[in-house]
Amino acid sequence: MVPHLATAFNGPLLEFEKKILEATPSIERWFRLEWQEHTPPFYCSVDMRNSGFKLAPVDTNLFPGGFNHLSSEVLPLAVQASMAAIEKYCPDARNLLLIPEGNPCNMTYWQNIARQMQIYRQTGLNVRLGSLDENLKTATTIVLPDGSDLVLEPLQRSANGRRLGLKNFDPCTILLNNDLSQSIPSILEEIHEQTLLPPLHAGWAMRRKTNHFDCYDEVVKKFSKMVEIDPWMLNPFHAKCTDVNFDEGTGLDALMATVDTILAKIRKKYKEYGIKEKPFVIVKADAGTCGMGIMTVRDSREVRDLNAKQKNKMTVVKDGRAVRDFIVQEGVYTFEQIGESVAEPVVYMIDRYVVGGFYRVHQDRGVDENLNAPGMEFVPLAFAQQHAVPDMRAKPGTAAPNRFYMYGVVARLALLAASLELEKTDPHPEIY
Amino acid sequence: MVPHLATAFNGPLLEFEKKILEATPSIERWFRLEWQEHTPPFYCSVDMRNSGFKLAPVDTNLFPGGFNHLSSEVLPLAVQASMAAIEKYCPDARNLLLIPEGNPCNMTYWQNIARQMQIYRQTGLNVRLGSLDENLKTATTIVLPDGSDLVLEPLQRSANGRRLGLKNFDPCTILLNNDLSQSIPSILEEIHEQTLLPPLHAGWAMRRKTNHFDCYDEVVKKFSKMVEIDPWMLNPFHAKCTDVNFDEGTGLDALMATVDTILAKIRKKYKEYGIKEKPFVIVKADAGTCGMGIMTVRDSREVRDLNAKQKNKMTVVKDGRAVRDFIVQEGVYTFEQIGESVAEPVVYMIDRYVVGGFYRVHQDRGVDENLNAPGMEFVPLAFAQQHAVPDMRAKPGTAAPNRFYMYGVVARLALLAASLELEKTDPHPEIY
Repeated sequence: MVPHLATAFNGPLLEFEKKILEATPSIERWFRLEWQEHTPPFYCSVDMRNSGFKLAPVDTNLFPGGFNHLSSEVLPLAVQASMAAIEKYCPDARNLLLIPEGNPCNMTYWQNIARQMQIYRQTGLNVRLGSLDENLKTATTIVLPDGSDLVLEPLQRSANGRRLGLKNFDPCTILLNNDLSQSIPSILEEIHEQTLLPPLHAGWAMRRKTNHFDCYDEVVKKFSKMVEIDPWMLNPFHAKCTDVNFDEGTGLDALMATVDTILAKIRKKYKEYGIKEKPFVIVKADAGTCGMGIMTVRDSREVRDLNAKQKNKMTVVKDGRAVRDFIVQEGVYTFEQIGESVAEPVVYMIDRYVVGGFYRVHQDRGVDENLNAPGMEFVPLAFAQQHAVPDMRAKPGTAAPNRFYMYGVVARLALLAASLELEKTDPHPEIY
Repeated sequence: MVPHLATAFNGPLLEFEKKILEATPSIERWFRLEWQEHTPPFYCSVDMRNSGFKLAPVDTNLFPGGFNHLSSEVLPLAVQASMAAIEKYCPDARNLLLIPEGNPCNMTYWQNIARQMQIYRQTGLNVRLGSLDENLKTATTIVLPDGSDLVLEPLQRSANGRRLGLKNFDPCTILLNNDLSQSIPSILEEIHEQTLLPPLHAGWAMRRKTNHFDCYDEVVKKFSKMVEIDPWMLNPFHAKCTDVNFDEGTGLDALMATVDTILAKIRKKYKEYGIKEKPFVIVKADAGTCGMGIMTVRDSREVRDLNAKQKNKMTVVKDGRAVRDFIVQEGVYTFEQIGESVAEPVVYMIDRYVVGGFYRVHQDRGVDENLNAPGMEFVPLAFAQQHAVPDMRAKPGTAAPNRFYMYGVVARLALLAASLELEKTDPHPEIY
């Protein structure tokens, strides 16, 4: 199933789909050569928005949850991709230590962890869970809704302090599914004998969205030249705004000016393409996740006129961290609809392979709003269905695998941007 | 769906399935390390037989046809695996030249070629077909039953004679789907600037089944030690017999003696395990394919008492070549049944990945006969179904993905044997 594109103005995207399909050999070759130069992160999910005139990643997650929302048909693909990844990092691997997020009450998150463990186990690894929660002193069992369970164990450094593991468990590879929002726990520091994936500077303690989208600019510029399209079709404008304090009202003028600049740029592009929609921007914390610290802005005055609750929402995000730096990003409408609900595609990758995806659907949200919010639902992408590879002869916009291939290409552009970003922001490039 | 195992005596195999599942991390790690040392062939299919007390490969095909019999759900897996393969051989590749078999009347074969082209195209390659038929002077179109078509083009060497291609098509990689039964065509010789996959000595002009099974002996010995099983459970006894001429009646005494030796060995094993079935062997051409030149033998006198038609069948195989060398292989019953028909699994691999498989089913053949014969049908293996990765908690023998994982392990043992075989039989090891 391809969600209905709820806009008459989808010509540009259908044409783009056609171009992408026709250019498949060049595109795949281009990616192959890029992956000779750059190492993809172990895994990644990309939130995208499809407005019919534009298809763009809006968020690139280096600690993807939500594996439980992928259809089980794609599991063999995920297993195969993680086999390729493990072979690269540590062919000799027996044991994988997975470090999840700390919230033990979010069952959906633990279902994601269970699904990931299933994938890595099938890859041929012994997988156990280590907790960053210092209060967790003994192995703790979490019972999942289906009756199965997970065991969270306290992390410990080896006797000589050089290795990280669990009791009677010495991993070769440590996989973080914890985005380190607040800071880098000292127990994760100074690990030189084991492979830590992704590296610590991929966590939100150090990562910045603006760095990512700066790299994405570079990637899209190169890609667009090859397939001969306007890079704007794949790339939302963005700019960085620092030292903004909503509570104290400082830095707001600069933020308003940035919002105005981006809105003006969008307006110009809309005019060029004859797009009648109203431009908007998204203001979000430059570091952070989980759909917090995000607002939709149609007029720069809105950032000045927030009420107390809204101010608080923009000031404090996950784990209580104060936010001062923001990214102002061109808002991309999502005109994909499943039934009456707005939908946005989320694509999952392991190593350099697209392994699946789903639509995030929200029936109470508008086409210009963040859908990553309570009340969202998930519909697996029609990936493993009959004739699951693209059909060159299908009419643009009608074949699910064609649409999905296009999504997979754009998601991989974001993945490549993440690779560049991790290279450029590496505090210790010599040992990377 | 798991085919019914039509034998009460399936304890050994169910226990083996359990062992294999439990040993998954060791097995996958073992394969990972083996693939660091040995390069798998580009692709491979393995015919297997499951007798309930034994699961063994009986034929390892390095020029697999039958891709059209794989379920379309596994296509993304095949695409991903061939991406990994191409990246290894020629990341810079744009063009792939595929050289098919010569028989233009076998529509099923061409459907296989169409399916393969679909896979490699999706990998991101321009794919065209070059014919070894010297009578084919211009591009020739083959119309498939679904109305689509394939174009066969004459092969040509480049002006300087160093490269092989088609008119206006210079490939980086040349993929043979032609098993070179008769001899190696001169147009394929002296290709040093392009990657020829698989190498020429993988063709039946040079390849010998006994070499393959000698290597398989080695592989299984190592593997069985690791998982602590009797290697015989995975490995049919075999021996080579040369200079046999059924027409002239020469070499038959030696053949009978070999048959007796193998039958005696099987009898001993059957006794050890309390198996009541009647031992049998398969006598087949040491070089050759397509189910020709094969006979089931329960008593060595049968090889002496052939009638004229049977003698002819054993003397001349595909492409009219005379056969003098034979492999005498322990016969493995196939006790898998779909409905009333005997079934044997065929597993497909690209690079080092299992990408799919099917059951070859024949309603007119017995449990001790070759099923690769006119009248055979194909049932895709239940690979891409719900919960398509193994379930450790399922009762042995009940879960399709568990059975299929076991098949995938044994098929990869044969794949590894093929890698060793190609290394050992390489006439130019220094340039391999």
